[in-house]
Order: sequence, then C-alpha cells, then structure tokens
Amino acid sequence: MSKTEIIGFGVIGAGLIGSLHAKNIATRVAGAELIGVMDVNLAVAEKYAFGNAYATQDLDRLLNDPDVDAVLIASLTSLHSEHIEKAAQAGKAIFCEKPVAIDIAETRRVMQLVEDKKIPFQIGFQRRFDPGYADLARRLREGEMGKIEMFRSQSSDPKPAPEHYIASSGGIYIDSVIHDIDVARFMVGEIRQVTALGRNLVDPVYGKHKDIDISILTLEFENDAIGLIQNSRRTPHGYDLRVEVHCEKGKLVTEDERQTKLWRYDAQGIHGDYFYYFMQRFDDAYRQEVQAFVDALVKGESGKPDTQDAIESLRVAIAATKSLHEGRSVLVSEI
Amino acid sequence: MSKTEIIGFGVIGAGLIGSLHAKNIATRVAGAELIGVMDVNLAVAEKYAFGNAYATQDLDRLLNDPDVDAVLIASLTSLHSEHIEKAAQAGKAIFCEKPVAIDIAETRRVMQLVEDKKIPFQIGFQRRFDPGYADLARRLREGEMGKIEMFRSQSSDPKPAPEHYIASSGGIYIDSVIHDIDVARFMVGEIRQVTALGRNLVDPVYGKHKDIDISILTLEFENDAIGLIQNSRRTPHGYDLRVEVHCEKGKLVTEDERQTKLWRYDAQGIHGDYFYYFMQRFDDAYRQEVQAFVDALVKGESGKPDTQDAIESLRVAIAATKSLHEGRSVLVSEI
Amino acid sequence: MSKTEIIGFGVIGAGLIGSLHAKNIATRVAGAELIGVMDVNLAVAEKYAFGNAYATQDLDRLLNDPDVDAVLIASLTSLHSEHIEKAAQAGKAIFCEKPVAIDIAETRRVMQLVEDKKIPFQIGFQRRFDPGYADLARRLREGEMGKIEMFRSQSSDPKPAPEHYIASSGGIYIDSVIHDIDVARFMVGEIRQVTALGRNLVDPVYGKHKDIDISILTLEFENDAIGLIQNSRRTPHGYDLRVEVHCEKGKLVTEDERQTKLWRYDAQGIHGDYFYYFMQRFDDAYRQEVQAFVDALVKGESGKPDTQDAIESLRVAIAATKSLHEGRSVLVSEI
Amino acid sequence: MSKTEIIGFGVIGAGLIGSLHAKNIATRVAGAELIGVMDVNLAVAEKYAFGNAYATQDLDRLLNDPDVDAVLIASLTSLHSEHIEKAAQAGKAIFCEKPVAIDIAETRRVMQLVEDKKIPFQIGFQRRFDPGYADLARRLREGEMGKIEMFRSQSSDPKPAPEHYIASSGGIYIDSVIHDIDVARFMVGEIRQVTALGRNLVDPVYGKHKDIDISILTLEFENDAIGLIQNSRRTPHGYDLRVEVHCEKGKLVTEDERQTKLWRYDAQGIHGDYFYYFMQRFDDAYRQEVQAFVDALVKGESGKPDTQDAIESLRVAIAATKSLHEGRSVLVSEI
Repeated sequence: MSKTEIIGFGVIGAGLIGSLHAKNIATRVAGAELIGVMDVNLAVAEKYAFGNAYATQDLDRLLNDPDVDAVLIASLTSLHSEHIEKAAQAGKAIFCEKPVAIDIAETRRVMQLVEDKKIPFQIGFQRRFDPGYADLARRLREGEMGKIEMFRSQSSDPKPAPEHYIASSGGIYIDSVIHDIDVARFMVGEIRQVTALGRNLVDPVYGKHKDIDISILTLEFENDAIGLIQNSRRTPHGYDLRVEVHCEKGKLVTEDERQTKLWRYDAQGIHGDYFYYFMQRFDDAYRQEVQAFVDALVKGESGKPDTQDAIESLRVAIAATKSLHEGRSVLVSEI
Repeated sequence: MSKTEIIGFGVIGAGLIGSLHAKNIATRVAGAELIGVMDVNLAVAEKYAFGNAYATQDLDRLLNDPDVDAVLIASLTSLHSEHIEKAAQAGKAIFCEKPVAIDIAETRRVMQLVEDKKIPFQIGFQRRFDPGYADLARRLREGEMGKIEMFRSQSSDPKPAPEHYIASSGGIYIDSVIHDIDVARFMVGEIRQVTALGRNLVDPVYGKHKDIDISILTLEFENDAIGLIQNSRRTPHGYDLRVEVHCEKGKLVTEDERQTKLWRYDAQGIHGDYFYYFMQRFDDAYRQEVQAFVDALVKGESGKPDTQDAIESLRVAIAATKSLHEGRSVLVSEI
Repeated sequence: MSKTEIIGFGVIGAGLIGSLHAKNIATRVAGAELIGVMDVNLAVAEKYAFGNAYATQDLDRLLNDPDVDAVLIASLTSLHSEHIEKAAQAGKAIFCEKPVAIDIAETRRVMQLVEDKKIPFQIGFQRRFDPGYADLARRLREGEMGKIEMFRSQSSDPKPAPEHYIASSGGIYIDSVIHDIDVARFMVGEIRQVTALGRNLVDPVYGKHKDIDISILTLEFENDAIGLIQNSRRTPHGYDLRVEVHCEKGKLVTEDERQTKLWRYDAQGIHGDYFYYFMQRFDDAYRQEVQAFVDALVKGESGKPDTQDAIESLRVAIAATKSLHEGRSVLVSEI
Repeated sequence: MSKTEIIGFGVIGAGLIGSLHAKNIATRVAGAELIGVMDVNLAVAEKYAFGNAYATQDLDRLLNDPDVDAVLIASLTSLHSEHIEKAAQAGKAIFCEKPVAIDIAETRRVMQLVEDKKIPFQIGFQRRFDPGYADLARRLREGEMGKIEMFRSQSSDPKPAPEHYIASSGGIYIDSVIHDIDVARFMVGEIRQVTALGRNLVDPVYGKHKDIDISILTLEFENDAIGLIQNSRRTPHGYDLRVEVHCEKGKLVTEDERQTKLWRYDAQGIHGDYFYYFMQRFDDAYRQEVQAFVDALVKGESGKPDTQDAIESLRVAIAATKSLHEGRSVLVSEI
C-alpha cells in the first residue's frame, strides 16, 4: 500500500449518510483519503471534515481539486443526477447513493453519460456488502445449492418516516423496496414480471401521499425461479431483515436482528439487543462498499453494483409501483 | 368421567391416518372408546382393531351398531362424501378427514345434508390443534397484538408425493395448501381474493399432471390484512413449517422444525432432529382434534372446524387453482 | 392389545404428582387401567378416581385387590419406604416416585427387600423419558459421538419452594439436584467423586434450614470424563434446563425452555412461551415413564431406572451434601 | 481530529497478532498512525509495514524515534517483560499482548516499574472489547440485573495447539483460561478462591507436558457469587464461546458462534458459518482495544485493562494451576 495508491475523496453532502461515509473514508477505508467535504451548510461540512480534509460550500472547489480522484455523492436525491453529471464532466470517479433519480428516463440519461465518458461508477446498494448477504449470494453463484427455486426477502422498518420524506420519496417501492429488489437481482438474477399487493394500515400519512406501508411483492425471475418481498413500515421490536433462498439442495438463510449477541432473560421475556435501523444494521456494509469501490479504482476498474444495476433495480421498482396502481401484474419490459 | 359419557367410535378406513386415529381413540383420547374398525381389507382392519374393538369389512355393521356414537371417516378421498352421507343417514356424529370432496358442489351438497340433519360434524384440519398454532390464533383473537396487518405461512414437504397420489389429488392448492389456507382463515379471517404464482421446478411428474410444486399464493382478507402462503414439494432438510403474523403491536411466530430439542454439533455442522413429515409433526394435533371432537359431543355440541370451514377453505383453494390456471387474481366470491 | 394384557393400577397418594399419574393411567397410558386411588383424604381420592376406578382411604383395600397388578406410590416422601415394603409384601409391582427415602441405609434395606422378592420395580426419574434426554443418552450409548469428555446439566427452578417443604426436603442435592445426578449417570456412567460449591443468595429461608439455593457441583466419572451441574432456586424467566455433553466428535445439546414454539416479538422484546415448572416441562415424560413401566411388566420384566439407580443416585446426592458441609471433595465410595 | 492528536505507533513483533495490530493501526484505528514495524526477521517486518511505515530489525530505532508515541508489544511471550522495560525506559506508552510474563514475580516487578514511571499501559485482554462482552459487563456494572449470583464462561478451541507452543505456554490456565478469568473479573469482580478439575483426554501431547486439555474451574468471588469456567482444546464444530451470568432479576447470555448470520439447511443438517478461532472471532475486538488505548492516550490517560489486571488475572491462573497440581482449592491470596 504505497502512498501513490491512495484514492483522494471528496464527499458531496454531509447529511446522515454522507457524514458516515466521510468518517469511514477518513478512518476505516484502506487506501482512501478524505480530501474535502462539501455541504450547502458550511458548519455541517466543517463538522465532518475529519483529519486534514477541508470543508467547503463550493462544489466546484471539490470538482476542480486535482487531489480529488473520486466523489461520493450523498446529496439530496433530487440533486443526484445533476451532481453525477458535473462530476462526470470533471472526470472524477463516482460513488453515488441510491437512487440516481426516481425517474427512469433521467436515470438512463445520466448513466449513459457516465458510460460514454468511461467514468468508474458505483451505486450505493450497501446490502450486497453485508457479510451475510455477500456470502449467501456467493454460494448461490457458485452453484453450491443447485438450482434456485424460491426467493424471499423481508424488510421491516422500526417506524414510519417523517412526512416531508414520504412526500418526495417516490413511494415504498422506489424508496425502500428497491433495496430488496437489488438483493433479489444480486442473488437470483433479472426479474421478468412483478405483482404488487399493498395496504395503508400503519400510518394514514402514507395514504395521504398515495403511498402504502404494508406490501407483498411477488417476483418472476427470467430463470424461472419465483420470489417475494415483504415490507412493513412499522416493526415495534426493531429493524427486522431476513433473506431465505430455497434451492434444489436446501435453503440458505441470513438474518441479523441483533446488534450484539447479547440476550437478556428476565421475568418479562427475552430481550435481544436489536439494531435500531439501517445505519446500525449496515454500519460495516457502508464501509465495505466504499472499500470495494476503492479497491476497484486502484485496479483501474469500475465499481459493482454499476450503472446497469442502478437502472435495472429502478425499473423493477417502477414496475412494482405501476402494478400496485393498476392492480395487475406488470412486465419489467414495459418500463 | 363416568362410563355413560364415553363416546363409542367406528373408524372407517384404516390407512395411514385412519390407523393413527384408531390407535389414538383406543389409547390417548379421554372419554372415547374404539368400538370397531372397518376397512375393505379385513387384515388391515384387524391389525388396527385395538383393545376390544372388532374388525369388519362391512360398513353397515358399524353404522347399525348402537355402540357406535360417532364415525371417523378416513377412507379414500373419493369416498368421503358417500361415507358422510351414509353416516348422516344413520344418525352418527361425523369426524371426516379433509377434504369432504375436491368438488365444491358435492361438498356443498353433503355439508347441507349434514346441517339439515343436525349431525355433529368436524373436518380434519389438524393444524388448528397444534399447541403453537392454537396459541397464536388465540392471541390474535383476543386482540393481544392489535390489528392484524400481514400473514405468512410456509409449508415445505420433505419430498414429492407418489405419482398415483398426485394424479387424483386435485392439485397442490386443494391437496396441500388448503391446510395453510385453513390456518389463514383460522387466524386472520375470511379471504376475499387470491393470486397464485407457481412453477414446476422440483419434479416433472407434477408438470405431467398439470400440477406445480413451488408456489407463492397471495391473500387479501376481508378485514383488509394481506398475506401469503409459500409452498414447496421438496425440502431436503425436513418438513419445514412456519407461521408469522405481523400486527400493530409486533409479530407472532410459530415454527417447529425439530422432533426433540436435541442439537448435535460436529465437524459437519449442526444437526437438529427434524420431524420427517406431517404424521410426526402433528402427531399430538391428530390426537387433540379428536379429543376436541369428543369433548364437543359430550357437551352436546358440534365440532369446530365445521361444515362451513370445510366449504370455505375449499373455495379458497379452488380460487387459487383458478388463479394459477388463468394467470389472474380471483375473487373467492367467484367460486 | 388384548384385555388380558391390561395392567391394573392402584395409585397411592393423590397429590400433585399422584393425581397426574392417575389421570395418565386412566387416559394416556396404553395397556393400563386405573383400578383404585387411595388417599388419606377421601374427597381427594374421589376427585382423581377417573373412569370406573374406586376411591379409598384404605391402603389394604388396594393391596388386597386382585385387580391391582401394580401400585404407583406418590405418597409423602417419608412414607415411601413403608408403602414399598407393604406393596412388596402384597406382591404388587411397584412404581415409586423418587426418592425411596432420604436416608441411604433405609433406601438400601427396602431396595434389598424388593430385589429379594423379585418385585418389578421402577423409580420415578422422569427426565430419562423426555424425548430430548432419551435421544441424547441413546446417541452417547451407541457411541455416535466417540468418547465422552465433559458433561453439563443446568436446572433452574422458577422460584423458591415453600418453607415447610424445604424443612424436610433433605437439602438441594437430595431433593432437586438428584434429578441432574441421575441424568449424569444415565448419560455418562457412574460417578466416582463430587465437589460441591454452594451459596444461599436467593432466599434466606434456605439458609435458615442450613440449605443453599445456588450450587455448582463438579463430577468425576469412573470413565475419566468430568462434569458439572449448575442449579438455582430462582430463574425469573421460567424453568430453565439444559444438558450439554462434549465428546470426541462434537457436542450434543438438549434444551427445552418453551411450552410451545410460539415467539412474540414486540416493543418490549421477544417473549417465549416458557414452561412454568417441571409438571409442565415433563408432562409427557411423566406419561412415558409409566408407559415404559407398563411395557416392561407386560414383557415380564422389571422397570428401569431400577433399585440400583434409586440407590446410586442417592449416594451421589448424599456425597454432594457431605462435600458442601465439609468443604472438600467426597468420594462416592465413602457413602 | 486534528493532525496533532494522531498517536504514532511502533509495533514490536510482526507475527500473527502483531501483524493484525499493524494493519489495524494503519487502516482501522482512528487517530493512530503506523510509524514503524520491528521484527527480528526483516522480510516479515517489511511485509507488514503498511502505508508509509518503515520496517526494521532494530528495536532501538523504534524506541528512539520521536514520532513513536506508543509501542505495541507482540513479540514472543518470553521477551515481553524485557520489551516493556525498555519501552518504559524510553518513555513510550505501552500496549502489551498478554501475558506480561508467565511468572508472577517478574510480572509484578515490571508492572511496578511501569507504574513508577507513570507510563500509560494497557494489557491485551481483547474479549473486554467484544461488543457482546462489553455490553454484558456494562449491564452488570450498572446493576440492571440486581445482585450477581452465578457466572459461567465456556471457551472451546477448535483444535489442539502445536507441541512447541504447548511446551512453553505455562499450561492451560496461564495460556488460555486466563482470558475467561479476566472476563470473570471484568464482569463479576475479584476472585477469592479457585478449584481446578482437569483431564488429558483430547491429545496425549498435553499430558506429555504435564498439561490438561479438558478443564472445569470453579470460582468463589469476593462478593460471594460463585462461578465456573469450562474449557476444551478440541471442538470439532468450531470455536465455541459462551458467557452466562445468572442474577437476581434474570440472566444475561452472550454467545457468538458464527462469522456471519448465514445458515445453510440441507439434507445433512444445518450449517452455520462458524468462526474458526480467536483471530476471526475477535477481529473487531482487536481493533477496538487499540482504539480504546489510543482514545485514552489522547485524553492523557492510561489504558484499561491495566497493570493491576495483568497481575490479578495471572494470580488467579497460577492459583488454578496450583489447585490442579495439588488437588485442592487454592486461595488467590496464596499467590
């Protein structure tokens, strides 16, 4: 690991996720160095400009800084495509939080631009980097379990999101289920058709925004396997994730409900030390995805999941949304 | 428990299930006595005529025997409705293995006849009597978890059935998934609409008979909850059942994969002592359902699940079959 | 199962355990019939004289009744040896709740008498008949795991016993740990030496009676394996049992904390449906031990665990008590 | 985190553990910088001189380097005390892998020297930094479970160590069980008396060196709680650790057998993805302990566990060894 291999990073947007990435780059990602942190709020940028990094409100300062080899875009979703476009123009490698855009045409346009310019790119589907998910996918890929027959992913959030977030989220499939969709594609393969079934049972605020908070999405894969994704916007006991894949030779299961392996047994029951939510649950995956991106850059490669994954997972999410609204199965090829 | 309260039983059909019931009635059901066992094969009837019970090939002997208060029908499915009709004519209380018939019109006809004659009747959906299932249903009924939001039942058989059985089974929904459907109705309530998604991935013999062996069935309940049932005809690690119900206040889960709580840890992994299949898994439920029937008879009541449950669970199973064949969601009211 | 093979039972003492045995014999033990129930309190005897059994205060009526083939002794511990002696004089087969006596000399005297008269005898160490314990022992016996290296049994009671019971119990080793000792002997083999370490930390009432309520007992087996038994008189979350045996090829574990496989997940944690105590936990084992006794009688054999087990497990319990009081390791051969 | 707060580290000894620490300091410990790596084998030192660090065979170069604020001693156990002494003379903060020495007098002498010079010091009992262990200890310390009654720690190694290691290890208590002892002290408090029971059942090589490979050690704490530690040098299914603490209000349990939460179910059983051994199991704890040391240095404090912990845990391990050899309980105050 010589000095010349260090990838200099500029972080764009220092909110919840951006600041975590800034800290990881500064302290937990080998071969990476945090050069600068940009945020419209300078005080926020300063707070997360760890080590010798500088803080700035000026995006161009980052994009014109020759020490910045790569940008990590964690700005507002509505700004992602603009920031990708500018970074690509500046020739920086790009790691972008999902989604590129909630609109498929805009997503395609920007991804095409990135590809045309041969910009190394990675999209932030961090679950692929969780050790359990990664191991499960690897075993399927290597054929250890034989033919895949049935996939199931369940993700239940601890509590509803704030209303301002819901209003611009694009709905449960584009905002949240897209993570399970990406996992399904990652583990099993491309999806041909989806059928959505949803209800607004948890919080009327979702209904107010024409959104649902309880969903079952069935999947038909190109390779003839079938699958389902279950989601809820409220799980009183904590963030609850589970993936099961039934195969010819048996099933693989990953679940990780607890932050530590501590159990408390008392007169009220058994108490596990749950993960509160995705930031805690995928803390290490957020580090590992950037590590993988850095490792790819050092080897002169692009990242993975890539532009194609950004587009395909969004297509499925949009097909699911359409299925919900139109009350019928929707072919992904319609999108 | 005085002698006068003992219910005398005649068992009709001494195959796999019939012989288990005969043994339970003879030895493990309080307040019941095995009077006679009828089978077309006299040697078989004799083998299971436990205690002082007699064996016979003659159905009329059982039906005309004044010591026989109730019959337990475990004959071939195709004979169920005829045997119910005869037993009802003879005024015997009836416990019938599921299904009454695989045809809904015939089922309705016979159930009507039983009701018209006020014959105490119980249908053999034994899962309701498993302690875990029963407790889960009770908690939901008592409102302990608040509003029900999402139901899931998974049942995976250890291996495909023999071809002759498949040919006349009525297909996976009527033959097998009907148990999960009955559990869904038992726990959550009546089902309004179903959507079936299935594949023949396990064994071509299912495809040969226009049947599937991997299925995801989504459910829309009258009370606005949604749900799903997952089934497979092959689970290499053993009979694999799990029910989860997500509610306003949390989730309830019952699973029971192992016959004893023994775990073996060795260089090859962890080995649980699985139930091989339903006869082992629901051994005690098969006893408890007959016990419940006897207890109801002693109190002068009919059993539960009753004629209505026999009809309703079948309607949903037929709707699921129709959904699979027509590739669309099917309202149960269509059936 | 012809009528002639039915074993007629007289139950002596219809308290908590006696009444359970009476009910089991009347309804859940194949090949057994409840003939009479004797209790000093006639109303109690009547309450549990299930079916056609008679109730009596007169022990001699039972012992002189030719329909009584076997007695089940569940009277006060202090009366066990007297009742065994009388039943043996009357030539009845004997199933006796543990212990025969809390005194080793008296135990030896009565067991010798039973053997001299060739009376079929079984002692009530019911854990041997729990499916998990039985399966674990069988696997060890058949050598499936290779050489046994280390044994562990943990039993924690939900709450302290009432004072009057403590006063005459003989102390924690003779009263309670003797069950774990018997399991150790059943699974691993005879014990050569024990070392007791105990405290009175849970309830001062134990200290008042020179007893302890928290104990670690280490075991040295004749076959060179070592082991330990952990006990507590208070486990707020429920009756908590676990047996682990480390062997050359791995470990075997049995635990059974929950009455059903139901889990409730809510904002307060995870709640299992625990067994309250031994009557619930070993409900089926209490049936199975009597079934095994009946099966042995039908074959003209004595039961197992037998007179030798009654003596040996008590010897170890007395050695443990001595070790605690004298603060040193005690050879079982000293007893 | 300004540049001036960065702690420069010299690593002494780049074997298994030393190289892990070097890598962690270079990439995963915030506020630390790897300055140099010293090993008697220069090629080895070079291999692990990550980033801009230098490699050297010359201990004095490290100790005289003003950029080196702290040393991490991971040399051969027999050299620890010499290296501590030299580093203390050079005024460097010291993190030393356990043990300081296997001799108590030498340990006391060197620890006294460190204290006299007010050198910040931390000993490498990494289990304290595992999230599960740390959380369990915190809960006990904060009194959440009420009075502690009984402690249990079980550690089973996957396979015997190589003979040359066994020969100079000081025996199972000083080499291995000392980790459980430190955890017992960390969670419950100081230990007054120990009683060792051991066997050589796994591999004759242990017997050859007068060592054992199966052990049960009972503990009497100063605060009147009792406890036990179980160890085996062979666990075919993987590295197997569990800590349970029974308290007035319930029990706390931490176990962590699997590297990821992946389960494979197949016809052979259930397969968890076990940790192979301590390097895998405590990977993050090894990072966190050094992070804690760095955080302490930045605040101008010494580390924890400290010189006193190095001495006390060794005293208990020596008492255990004495107990084993003399076949009696040994007061720690004898050591």
